[in-house]
Amino acid sequence: MDRRSFLRTSALGGTAAAASSLAAPAVAQGRITWRMVTTWPKNFPGLGVGAQRLADRITAASDGALTVEVYSAGELVPPLQSLDAVIDGTAEMSHGAAYYWQNKSTALSFFTGVPFGMTSREMAAWVRYMGGQELWDEIYDQFGVQGFLSGDTGTQAGGWFRNELTSIDDIQGLRFRTPGLGGQVWQGMGASVTNMAGGEIFQALQSGALDAAEFVGPYNDLALGFYQVCKHYYTSSFNEPGLATEVVVDKAKYQALPANLQAIVRDVAQAEYDQVASDFYANDPRALKTLVEEHGVTIHSQFPDDIMEAAATSAKEVLGNVLNSDDELVRRTGRSFIDSLQLLRTRTENTDQTFNAVRQKFMDYSDL
Amino acid sequence: MDRRSFLRTSALGGTAAAASSLAAPAVAQGRITWRMVTTWPKNFPGLGVGAQRLADRITAASDGALTVEVYSAGELVPPLQSLDAVIDGTAEMSHGAAYYWQNKSTALSFFTGVPFGMTSREMAAWVRYMGGQELWDEIYDQFGVQGFLSGDTGTQAGGWFRNELTSIDDIQGLRFRTPGLGGQVWQGMGASVTNMAGGEIFQALQSGALDAAEFVGPYNDLALGFYQVCKHYYTSSFNEPGLATEVVVDKAKYQALPANLQAIVRDVAQAEYDQVASDFYANDPRALKTLVEEHGVTIHSQFPDDIMEAAATSAKEVLGNVLNSDDELVRRTGRSFIDSLQLLRTRTENTDQTFNAVRQKFMDYSDL
Repeated sequence: MDRRSFLRTSALGGTAAAASSLAAPAVAQGRITWRMVTTWPKNFPGLGVGAQRLADRITAASDGALTVEVYSAGELVPPLQSLDAVIDGTAEMSHGAAYYWQNKSTALSFFTGVPFGMTSREMAAWVRYMGGQELWDEIYDQFGVQGFLSGDTGTQAGGWFRNELTSIDDIQGLRFRTPGLGGQVWQGMGASVTNMAGGEIFQALQSGALDAAEFVGPYNDLALGFYQVCKHYYTSSFNEPGLATEVVVDKAKYQALPANLQAIVRDVAQAEYDQVASDFYANDPRALKTLVEEHGVTIHSQFPDDIMEAAATSAKEVLGNVLNSDDELVRRTGRSFIDSLQLLRTRTENTDQTFNAVRQKFMDYSDL
Repeated sequence: MDRRSFLRTSALGGTAAAASSLAAPAVAQGRITWRMVTTWPKNFPGLGVGAQRLADRITAASDGALTVEVYSAGELVPPLQSLDAVIDGTAEMSHGAAYYWQNKSTALSFFTGVPFGMTSREMAAWVRYMGGQELWDEIYDQFGVQGFLSGDTGTQAGGWFRNELTSIDDIQGLRFRTPGLGGQVWQGMGASVTNMAGGEIFQALQSGALDAAEFVGPYNDLALGFYQVCKHYYTSSFNEPGLATEVVVDKAKYQALPANLQAIVRDVAQAEYDQVASDFYANDPRALKTLVEEHGVTIHSQFPDDIMEAAATSAKEVLGNVLNSDDELVRRTGRSFIDSLQLLRTRTENTDQTFNAVRQKFMDYSDL
């Protein structure tokens, strides 16, 4: 899910404070206070909560030597100006998702997630051990900032539909809310793709303006009430195998920090990559249980085969365009991502995937 | 893999230093030095390396206020006395795997991994959001220590076999090196299970004393040369869906630390849970590629169906025994693990698993 337009309107009432009056980080008694802007509404499950927790953990681990103050979407700047706020010195940190800044470099998509791309484990392996971080640094160096992975939702849900999908014919002209590169993939398959804010989806479904929508996964979707209109929930998105969040810092200010505070920022960001994923893995299935047992939702884990085939073809075209970018760094990042994925998937498919399939087929714990 | 006997002999030349002369942690100029004993040989890929990195990260993040000195297997105490070394005050920390201490409580198996049990993502969700940590604390409180997750190998490999396995008949009486609860599962299926040190496996395979063996996964197995004798490699273990490592601290000394140092230990341990997994996810497939392309190994991702069926039946019996323990805390931990897994697997199976299967079936990146 690209939360772009959701965030745009969810920042209701948020007013960007004048940047000039806030440009210098507060330093008192050897203590540094950093402002972290976020792209998430306050207390947004999993992600907004994670941004606040990340800030609190940095403050705690440094005993306040680096105190991080969080400004949720719209409190200091509009959500989609979070990265610019770090670039122009309004804030020292930003918590969001790299693909929100695709207009600065298409390559940033790869550090959040792309259709048929990497799972959260594969993403971390690429970033930490296969050259991903170095490419990311090269991209962000152009803007004087540095990014670290800071969370992951795990594989997201495929979406909410009024009727069961039986074949590719059912999605021709279907008015479907799904943004970003994934939206391009559905568009290529024949859907009539619309983007709109998360907060607007429910009403659009209810009024009939939308036939279907995807947002995040059970943990977030339950709260928005889509089940009141759509009873068919496809629980696995081919477009969003993972959604990694980032924390971005002003690189010069970061490098000017004492080495131990630099280490704390890195360590806490990495700890949060695990914590956010754990939150989603624990709370998605709880929410899914509620959707099924209390709201009569029918679960489909997979779209029909002909839809998947069309999706793979369309995704290849969308990704192929990125790989043929005029920008050499975009091409190089895409190449590294695809080549790494080709290697990583051999483990996923021969080992993890096999275990999961075997456990699913042969092990029933219900009578234990 | 239970590295128990491997570690016992790999601690060659290691001499336990006299505990008495080392009992008090060094404190100089407000700095605390903690000794961390480990169950891993120095530089053991993924795990020994991870223990050293964890120590270095705590030292760096605290600017030396908490300096952690690492003693590899046998340097201060024999590897399988690591936990006792923390209990008796010889060391302040231990890095290993909770199931090494099954003799203290069978429930500790669940915090490393059990046959047909939790993957690394499921384990973190249980420990952090579904009551796992609280149960673990209750178990370790009996010994005055506290455990944190500190790494995970991901799903391990099923093992090395001379000949392809075609049915359950092929494993009757098969002399197979595989330890722990997983060993009990194979024994129940008809194999003749042996345990021996990792360093002894190669020779036993070569001499014919062993027909087959499992150790960890490609990253570690490649180095031990099993491919020289066995050409059939089963890449997915039903017994080891993940292997979580732990870092254990002396609880009283931990709680006496300033709050920021406590936070740093927790944060770094959690960051390492991700880092170690990333290391295995990146380096296992590289090693597997070498095994196939340079050493002519044949890969089988899955055992034949009748073997899997027998394995599930046997595993249920093995786990059932644990769940019927005389120890109430063991029963309660097992119940929490199984109930949480029943919920967690719905996400794994309906979402992650589905995505992986769809990508595997429909997306070929080789011409992109």
